[in-house]
Amino acid sequence: MSPFAKPETLRWVGDAGGYLRLLDQTKLPTEVVEVECRDVESVWQAIRQLQVRGAPAIGLAAAYGVCLGLQSVREANDEAFGKRLEEVTRYLAGSRPTAVNLFWALERMQRVGNESRGWRSPAAWHDALLEEARVIHEQDRATCHAIGRHGAALLPDPVGVLTHCNAGGLAASEYGTALAVLFTAQDQGKRLHVFVDETRPLLQGARLTAWELVQRQIPATLICDSMAAQVMREGRVQAVITGADRIAANGDTANKIGTYSVAVLARAHDIPLYVAAPCNTFDLSLASGDGIPIEQRAAEEITQGLGRQIAPAGIGVYNPAFDVTPATHITAIITERGVIAPVTRENIQRVVGGASR
Amino acid sequence: MSPFAKPETLRWVGDAGGYLRLLDQTKLPTEVVEVECRDVESVWQAIRQLQVRGAPAIGLAAAYGVCLGLQSVREANDEAFGKRLEEVTRYLAGSRPTAVNLFWALERMQRVGNESRGWRSPAAWHDALLEEARVIHEQDRATCHAIGRHGAALLPDPVGVLTHCNAGGLAASEYGTALAVLFTAQDQGKRLHVFVDETRPLLQGARLTAWELVQRQIPATLICDSMAAQVMREGRVQAVITGADRIAANGDTANKIGTYSVAVLARAHDIPLYVAAPCNTFDLSLASGDGIPIEQRAAEEITQGLGRQIAPAGIGVYNPAFDVTPATHITAIITERGVIAPVTRENIQRVVGGASR
Repeated sequence: MSPFAKPETLRWVGDAGGYLRLLDQTKLPTEVVEVECRDVESVWQAIRQLQVRGAPAIGLAAAYGVCLGLQSVREANDEAFGKRLEEVTRYLAGSRPTAVNLFWALERMQRVGNESRGWRSPAAWHDALLEEARVIHEQDRATCHAIGRHGAALLPDPVGVLTHCNAGGLAASEYGTALAVLFTAQDQGKRLHVFVDETRPLLQGARLTAWELVQRQIPATLICDSMAAQVMREGRVQAVITGADRIAANGDTANKIGTYSVAVLARAHDIPLYVAAPCNTFDLSLASGDGIPIEQRAAEEITQGLGRQIAPAGIGVYNPAFDVTPATHITAIITERGVIAPVTRENIQRVVGGASR
Repeated sequence: MSPFAKPETLRWVGDAGGYLRLLDQTKLPTEVVEVECRDVESVWQAIRQLQVRGAPAIGLAAAYGVCLGLQSVREANDEAFGKRLEEVTRYLAGSRPTAVNLFWALERMQRVGNESRGWRSPAAWHDALLEEARVIHEQDRATCHAIGRHGAALLPDPVGVLTHCNAGGLAASEYGTALAVLFTAQDQGKRLHVFVDETRPLLQGARLTAWELVQRQIPATLICDSMAAQVMREGRVQAVITGADRIAANGDTANKIGTYSVAVLARAHDIPLYVAAPCNTFDLSLASGDGIPIEQRAAEEITQGLGRQIAPAGIGVYNPAFDVTPATHITAIITERGVIAPVTRENIQRVVGGASR
């Protein structure tokens, strides 16, 4: 890449024999470094270690990861190719448990693989899978812009917005989901001020959302997660917008740990809470949020997350990566097909029911 | 000190010509280091830089700081001594603005100074002031134990307790305030499990409260501040206990930033919130919390608080050190004179009205 090219969250380089380049999000904001994934194992590691994160971006990385995993059997026979396709998708599905977009993308790749089987050579089959990954990527871009348009219409002008974690271009394509709403509002000339929860333990707000907002010159203030209530009480927030990792059929929403806290605080201060997410974030097979598996991560993310030991040896630690916000606390869900409000099973079914899942 | 002696939060060494030793709380939990303050400037710095922190401990450090500041005029005349006493108390009062115990201790030292004036030599006057500082210290010890007794009676058995920041022995004498309740409950054989908010930005929960609980072998789990709501939702918390930096006449309570957030979350989950504080934390001259000055601290505490840059250049930062929890959100205030519940102006006046202020 030219040293002047803008780094992208992720992009495929070359043809079916190519590789995946990822912006290493663990290094931001102090270093802008890209990593090259040339095999499926490095994609799995990149997802697990959060070099790429955010529900839609995980799905995209996994789709390209499938293509990488099949490079070695491109010249093999149908049976070997089909077996490897199954292996690779099962392997990638184990990288992280909560974001449903991961499984959605893998299922879609497998479906295209199955459709191609038998009437094309493994090489043509492989080409078709790379084409599918590119289509998913392109659709995600369009989806993010549509979410931005639907969401921006909900915001007054001027407006103070609070966001938690990162659901920006780094979590998806180009505009992201929650941040797409803000970027679109900015494009429309609305006056914004964004309060950014730093989002412990891994500081995706401080590191990633703040970086995206500074790059786009949107006025923004970084706060610790514990300050959100105070900023709300001071009357500086008129809307809360977050992304989502999985949404059940009744609207219960899994998202970064701390989202439920923000939702309770927003409700206590009569501030609307909007969840911005593409339709492939819905998991209509789950009746409610009770069925969403919550990833537990290592204690060291809290006790040594910033390179220094901050807690004594011997202390217990609880580190759920996500929590579930009940649908009752969500004012509206903003999808690429429109706004779901109020958040009810029926309204979700109407908008998402015939979706690509 | 013997290398085997247990370090204390703070202690005066020697006679009126002695010095103040402080446990450097910025180094905990990885290093247990004491610093020696041999002049009033180093006490001011220790308070400002949070080497000593917690409302009661700040008051104690300031009282001893007055003694240090007067060592140079011990052999001077009455006028020079009186002038210096005024200088020194005014200087120390500027170290931190929110905790009222600081002003309470300084006023008490000045009152004793004024009473001694004229009928004693400056040296005897100085001795009387050191004696007063020691009395304040001894009273604080007794106060903490009384708070512990009154508070422990409020806890069921077994009980999950959530606490924010550090209101333990490191914030006061021996038992502390909020943690005195837990230490006393432990002494009584109650089965406790404590959830410790790490308390960003300066991590007093992770560094100090976790350290005190591990030392006393009380089962405890460290969480990020954003996880408190989730732990409450899981039914693991039956009481929230915090300290206080200043309490207005109507019960509105300034405490570490994030306390208001915890209070709103506790209320939403029907969990009682107890504030544990000595009577000298009340500022009856303030009708409500609106009058409490809130210290704003440096942006770097958030963006570089752990030795590493975690946010991009150009991002705005808001870093209030405290927030105010309205009396309506506080189930009871636990003082050394008994429990104030419900928290009303009348109940506060009855318990605290004739207090040492």
